[in-house]
Amino acid sequence: MARSERRELKIREVLALRQPDLTIVIENIHDPHNVSAVLRSCDAVGVLRVELLYTSEKFPRIGRKSSSGANKWLELRKHSSVDECYAALRKEGYAVLATFLGESSRSLYDLDLTKKTALVFGNEHRGVSKEAARKADGNFQIPMLGMIQSLNVSVACAVALYESLRQRLSAGALNRPKLNEEELAVLYRSWIER
Amino acid sequence: MARSERRELKIREVLALRQPDLTIVIENIHDPHNVSAVLRSCDAVGVLRVELLYTSEKFPRIGRKSSSGANKWLELRKHSSVDECYAALRKEGYAVLATFLGESSRSLYDLDLTKKTALVFGNEHRGVSKEAARKADGNFQIPMLGMIQSLNVSVACAVALYESLRQRLSAGALNRPKLNEEELAVLYRSWIER
Repeated sequence: MARSERRELKIREVLALRQPDLTIVIENIHDPHNVSAVLRSCDAVGVLRVELLYTSEKFPRIGRKSSSGANKWLELRKHSSVDECYAALRKEGYAVLATFLGESSRSLYDLDLTKKTALVFGNEHRGVSKEAARKADGNFQIPMLGMIQSLNVSVACAVALYESLRQRLSAGALNRPKLNEEELAVLYRSWIER
Repeated sequence: MARSERRELKIREVLALRQPDLTIVIENIHDPHNVSAVLRSCDAVGVLRVELLYTSEKFPRIGRKSSSGANKWLELRKHSSVDECYAALRKEGYAVLATFLGESSRSLYDLDLTKKTALVFGNEHRGVSKEAARKADGNFQIPMLGMIQSLNVSVACAVALYESLRQRLSAGALNRPKLNEEELAVLYRSWIER
């Protein structure tokens, strides 16, 4: 098979596995290495579009090398406020769940991540803002059994995204494309030019 | 409760959740940020001891800040060769499973990680060495659905460790300490001095 044919096939295969019903919101994550690792995990589990909520930090410049180009294969959508971001997501039918260590936070492993979900991850030092946590449809936390009280944000994001992938694989949710034929065609024409 | 009492209690709680039947081998991972993130994930899921297999690289100096001190709460054991490392682990009853993209590699989600297991992760650029993959009891891979063919090593490690934690939580394997009373007492006396 010619190189261009392999590429076309790869793009079709990857698009057929994209999960338009799974997204993440990254709120003011400022380290480019963290953002790159997050985007790489998003590509790996089939996220189609990532929501960027940058209110107090700038979205970092991402080197092509560190992200291994994952940003090339993700749609990035910018938001200017928590309200605007959550309203857009809810209009599209997403339940918005924010990582937050609180008394009413549920365990990651008690969530049904086969449903249409947007997961919110916060800044490296401050975590998800109180506003973003409070206005979400629910909060969750990743169980931690150790002496240290936090995980690297790109690690936390990958653990949650992969739990979603595990649940979807287990439910047979990846056996057919979630994008319809028209959406697949539009994305294919865009990706093939990248 | 006084601060020293809270610390004693915290150490007892964490030791009661340590998983002596789960370990990882890190083979020539050279970036200190990656090593730090890996150690932080180990602490979070209850790994007791980490196996260091450094044959072509030096084990990096880890700043206290970047690891948030996770290395302080892990036993680190050095090995000089794949043979010596795997022999030591097998003598203790571990099945050794290496991350490797091969035809006979099983999916992470098909592994029983409630069993006594050592997971092998390799260098950022070269992955697990062919020798370490070939001599392992089995190889596994983390499913990837995207355009990019690899994950950040600290991300891969966290996804695998958390899958183990998920299985153990689900099996009720964390309801009582896995270390016996004497081991707990010895570790407690060591940790309280750290």
